[in-house]
Amino acid sequence: MTAPPIKPQTLKGFRDYLPPAAMAREELLEAARRVFRSYGFSPIDTPALEYSEIILGKGGDESDKQLFRFTDQGDRDVALRFDLTVPFARFAAQHFNDLGMPFKRYHTGTVWRAEKPQKGRFREFMQCDFDTIGTDSNAADIETLLVIHDLLMAVGFERFTIRVNNRMILNGLLAQLGLADRAVGVLRALDKLHKIGPAGVISEMTDRVGATATQASQVLELAGISGPPKDLLLRLGTLLQKSDQGTAGVEKLAELFDVAHVAGIPAERLQLDVSIARGLDYYTGTIYETVLDDRPEFGSVCSGGRYDDLAGLFTNQRLPGVGASLGLDRLLAALEDLGRVPATSTPAPVFIVLFSAARLGEYARIGRMLRTAGIFAELFPEARPVGKQLKYADRKGFRVALIAGDDEFAAGQWQVKDLRQGGQERVVEGELVATIQRILATS
Amino acid sequence: MTAPPIKPQTLKGFRDYLPPAAMAREELLEAARRVFRSYGFSPIDTPALEYSEIILGKGGDESDKQLFRFTDQGDRDVALRFDLTVPFARFAAQHFNDLGMPFKRYHTGTVWRAEKPQKGRFREFMQCDFDTIGTDSNAADIETLLVIHDLLMAVGFERFTIRVNNRMILNGLLAQLGLADRAVGVLRALDKLHKIGPAGVISEMTDRVGATATQASQVLELAGISGPPKDLLLRLGTLLQKSDQGTAGVEKLAELFDVAHVAGIPAERLQLDVSIARGLDYYTGTIYETVLDDRPEFGSVCSGGRYDDLAGLFTNQRLPGVGASLGLDRLLAALEDLGRVPATSTPAPVFIVLFSAARLGEYARIGRMLRTAGIFAELFPEARPVGKQLKYADRKGFRVALIAGDDEFAAGQWQVKDLRQGGQERVVEGELVATIQRILATS
Repeated sequence: MTAPPIKPQTLKGFRDYLPPAAMAREELLEAARRVFRSYGFSPIDTPALEYSEIILGKGGDESDKQLFRFTDQGDRDVALRFDLTVPFARFAAQHFNDLGMPFKRYHTGTVWRAEKPQKGRFREFMQCDFDTIGTDSNAADIETLLVIHDLLMAVGFERFTIRVNNRMILNGLLAQLGLADRAVGVLRALDKLHKIGPAGVISEMTDRVGATATQASQVLELAGISGPPKDLLLRLGTLLQKSDQGTAGVEKLAELFDVAHVAGIPAERLQLDVSIARGLDYYTGTIYETVLDDRPEFGSVCSGGRYDDLAGLFTNQRLPGVGASLGLDRLLAALEDLGRVPATSTPAPVFIVLFSAARLGEYARIGRMLRTAGIFAELFPEARPVGKQLKYADRKGFRVALIAGDDEFAAGQWQVKDLRQGGQERVVEGELVATIQRILATS
Repeated sequence: MTAPPIKPQTLKGFRDYLPPAAMAREELLEAARRVFRSYGFSPIDTPALEYSEIILGKGGDESDKQLFRFTDQGDRDVALRFDLTVPFARFAAQHFNDLGMPFKRYHTGTVWRAEKPQKGRFREFMQCDFDTIGTDSNAADIETLLVIHDLLMAVGFERFTIRVNNRMILNGLLAQLGLADRAVGVLRALDKLHKIGPAGVISEMTDRVGATATQASQVLELAGISGPPKDLLLRLGTLLQKSDQGTAGVEKLAELFDVAHVAGIPAERLQLDVSIARGLDYYTGTIYETVLDDRPEFGSVCSGGRYDDLAGLFTNQRLPGVGASLGLDRLLAALEDLGRVPATSTPAPVFIVLFSAARLGEYARIGRMLRTAGIFAELFPEARPVGKQLKYADRKGFRVALIAGDDEFAAGQWQVKDLRQGGQERVVEGELVATIQRILATS
């Protein structure tokens, strides 16, 4: 009698990644990392577990509830990180002297939140952040925009819009309307414009934030002005000419649009949107949101902004910076929804049939030859009937099968079978790579 | 008055990865993943947190002590994974019907062990495993060897030795010596041969395992026989001709050496070593260890073997398999010790000086042009004096600096400065890519 097995199951709110999902995510991450590196951003990593004091920071009650927090064997109060920003702040303060400023880093890592699980929301997920710290220069803000653009392109999108704004413009407008002291509440309400509509925003501003109906309407009117960035910035410049902050914000955005144009970013991918505020108190300058033109309902897939001080909790050294976060799960969901995630369970397109067990060395040799040519190939490990092996290949989504028996070996040839289009041809070994490349290039 | 900052520190036994270490690890992982995929292994991922019942399995006391284990907000007894094998067993049992057998996966992920931290040993580290499950075929064992070989090559080694053995040979020898019932203890002692020497092994076998001195000497003698695999296998074949298990082991290894030869693995990188046992009860067939010829003291950097059943704790479905684990930390330490980790903090070799703030668009444009040509380039974000910018570039380890002011822009030229060899030349934009590529190709 064997013991009854332990039930194999994951915790509520946690998930496994099977090959199709894991491959799509890995491909996305590798493309993103390449873009980060291409701009000189370096990877870093920090521990998943930290002192709770550090993870909590000044987050107070709300974050507290979301933490996986416990006492370790050394009686330390520890917690799993719930984002990559707090660990980065701690990291920057701790290693300030070793890093050299300005410092550009990216960080892809898992974070944990003990939230109520919902459809598409998990207690464990991966974040992908990049930041430039140690400089106030608008050049870093502009580079952030270029990186966002090139990231989206690299992961396979061409139709997207990066919406840009500057908190200084919003603050200037609010000051002019006599709402400076209610800025946080007003901006939080404004941020919901795309979700709850103008009427909802107005009622939130009047009922909860304490603005007058006139003030609320004026905010919405200002936030709603749109048009080509150049015209819009002129209008805003006139409107804000008495506000130093507002004027500075307009100038920074004007430089951003100019430089982006010279650097080759197509104008249709950029938009000035005075309505985006990204709620948080945290941001103080440029703000970014990115929507997919064909899937706006997925929300922003890359957001961020400029902040005055990253690590005030951990050091008296002021660390201004600018950065953004790539929404991996949203991007993956969008790619899947757009039918861009191939229905395959194998990272290798070529399947080598193990036709004759005695020829294992030959099959292994041809596999290594293909890999050297950059063609990924899997060799089936058992000499089962060809039909069964091809069924396995089909199920996993291979594109091409190679078959050779005594006849082929005698002639120095291989049968090349196109598993998607059908059709089979016999080629000499010297033509194998070219033949496979030709088949893979179709469809 | 501002509140005193929270002290920025990591937990005992945990570490941050600064750019040089993070870049080296990322490069290693990307190279490894590429090799895995080239053989048709797919990535998977599993949660860091699981039910303690699953993580503990039958591990009992010893693992228990090493676990980060706690009760979550839903009153569940949970733990952080301490390896990737137990989660893979659970995963394979849970998703058996979706995976399709045979199933080849790799998994790179963080694991946690609450061990006493020691020099070079951390409570959080990354593992990198690959396995083929659902087949008993020796073809999978042989492929595992090929993957180990190609992995080591891909991460930059040419001088290494893969030591191979088969537990069936060891078991056959032990049976012949009347030690079958003491196999585990004997093999555990034998495994320490390279560490404690022959006398130590003999005393452990006699004092702790209960072998006679004659038996212990005979084990050592058999384990010590060496020579070219072909001769050695002939000798072992004769020695074990009455043992079915031993004979089967000899045949499997003979096929392994034959196929590896045909597939193009240089003979000097393979060794039959009858002394390696890899202690654990777990392995039942082929066993692998890999040592770096120039740094044998780092121990095995890639080890593994064949097992009869992966997931017996979670399913009655038998899942035989074979796999190995790449020792990332050992490999990184060896690469560093060999001076193969470049002393640079930037993933981009080219540094663009922000000479004239008004020309930001031009610098940004040239950066994007270089990236399109596959050359990674960082643009400094502030128009500080050139000397200061070059000091930053030097400290971070850039190879080439690009400088252009009004003169250069008027002439459509760029100053290209070789930061390592010294020297500077002025080239037209159309020659920029070729010039940089030439400089990067030197040294």
